[in-house]
Amino acid sequence: MKTHLPMLQVALDNLSMAAAYNTTRLIAAEVDIIEVGTILCVAEGVRAVRDLKALYPDRIVLADAKIADAGQILARMCFEAHADWITVICCADINTAKGALQVAHEFGGDVQIELTGFWTWEQAQAWREAGIGQVVYHRSRDAQAAGVAWSDDDIRAVHRLSEMGFKVTVTGGLSLADLPLFRGIPIHVFIAGRSIRDAADPVAAAREFKRVIAQLWG
Amino acid sequence: MKTHLPMLQVALDNLSMAAAYNTTRLIAAEVDIIEVGTILCVAEGVRAVRDLKALYPDRIVLADAKIADAGQILARMCFEAHADWITVICCADINTAKGALQVAHEFGGDVQIELTGFWTWEQAQAWREAGIGQVVYHRSRDAQAAGVAWSDDDIRAVHRLSEMGFKVTVTGGLSLADLPLFRGIPIHVFIAGRSIRDAADPVAAAREFKRVIAQLWG
Repeated sequence: MKTHLPMLQVALDNLSMAAAYNTTRLIAAEVDIIEVGTILCVAEGVRAVRDLKALYPDRIVLADAKIADAGQILARMCFEAHADWITVICCADINTAKGALQVAHEFGGDVQIELTGFWTWEQAQAWREAGIGQVVYHRSRDAQAAGVAWSDDDIRAVHRLSEMGFKVTVTGGLSLADLPLFRGIPIHVFIAGRSIRDAADPVAAAREFKRVIAQLWG
Repeated sequence: MKTHLPMLQVALDNLSMAAAYNTTRLIAAEVDIIEVGTILCVAEGVRAVRDLKALYPDRIVLADAKIADAGQILARMCFEAHADWITVICCADINTAKGALQVAHEFGGDVQIELTGFWTWEQAQAWREAGIGQVVYHRSRDAQAAGVAWSDDDIRAVHRLSEMGFKVTVTGGLSLADLPLFRGIPIHVFIAGRSIRDAADPVAAAREFKRVIAQLWG
């Protein structure tokens, strides 16, 4: 069923609003979720969230703020700028995640735990117990540049997170060729960044992602 | 000797430049380091770093970006905005820290690992081996709000980090009354945020911090 297909998210890891708009003006209608990447958050501040949601009100807008502390303050800042979802970094104190989630509920939004770098299954259990429903399984951009590829361990971890009840987003230099690795797991969202942004034809690249997702999960 | 006294850093965890300026116009000359807090980074973007360094070129300006990935890109963004120091979050892949440090060296800047939340001594060793010289020992703001106080474990951890060769910054709702806990450890920097920003007389509060630091470490 259509509603069970993994969604497609474009990550706007741009250095300016103008650079992000060069992508979104083409592919905003092709994706389910527009991610205000951490790079864009730092470059432009929370206005990036506000302006993108104003431009694309019918898309899910995710603020990848990777909140590490001050969960309530940062969550409120993002949700007041009309973010739909926000991210909390995995090493944050559990009270940071709880604070962010409390504010999210106030706004009808949601919180994802961003699994970049070091985390444990004990933490994952604590997130579930705190009511966290979404995680982002992230192959580090820098680990990836250092030659670390998707491994059986990655696939097993994604599967286990899904079985724990998390809606799992998968990201980290994902190409079309990587998608079959996750077949059979009810992935919530796939994130494509450079593979859409830097494509010669970003619209065609986004549509090809959707087509392969439908083929593998439909 | 003066140069061995712990330095004083004010954390600007404000929601806007204007709010930050209300503090800095009073106490910029009283502190050694001006921290562009994560909250201000998210609120205003990297212009917060650029504008504060332009206003206070003879202060050390620290961008508390808590970089979790894309170490080189985010580090370059901060250093091009004339940050002196930047932070990398403890759960980041070691390649993120290495990438940030490489860019820091290019600009004559430095990288601090921000010990917010979950980290291990194996990671600390890896940071040393990667050439990281500074860490920020951080009692989580949210843990603190949940009633977690400075403990013997905290003090022992700060001592051990110092003995490993790190220059250690200490932060997390620090009040004057907490300073004696760290006596005898060569603390590099103490961060005061709300205890200076929200003081009735911020100048007097900053000077009192400096006076007590000189008393305990002089």
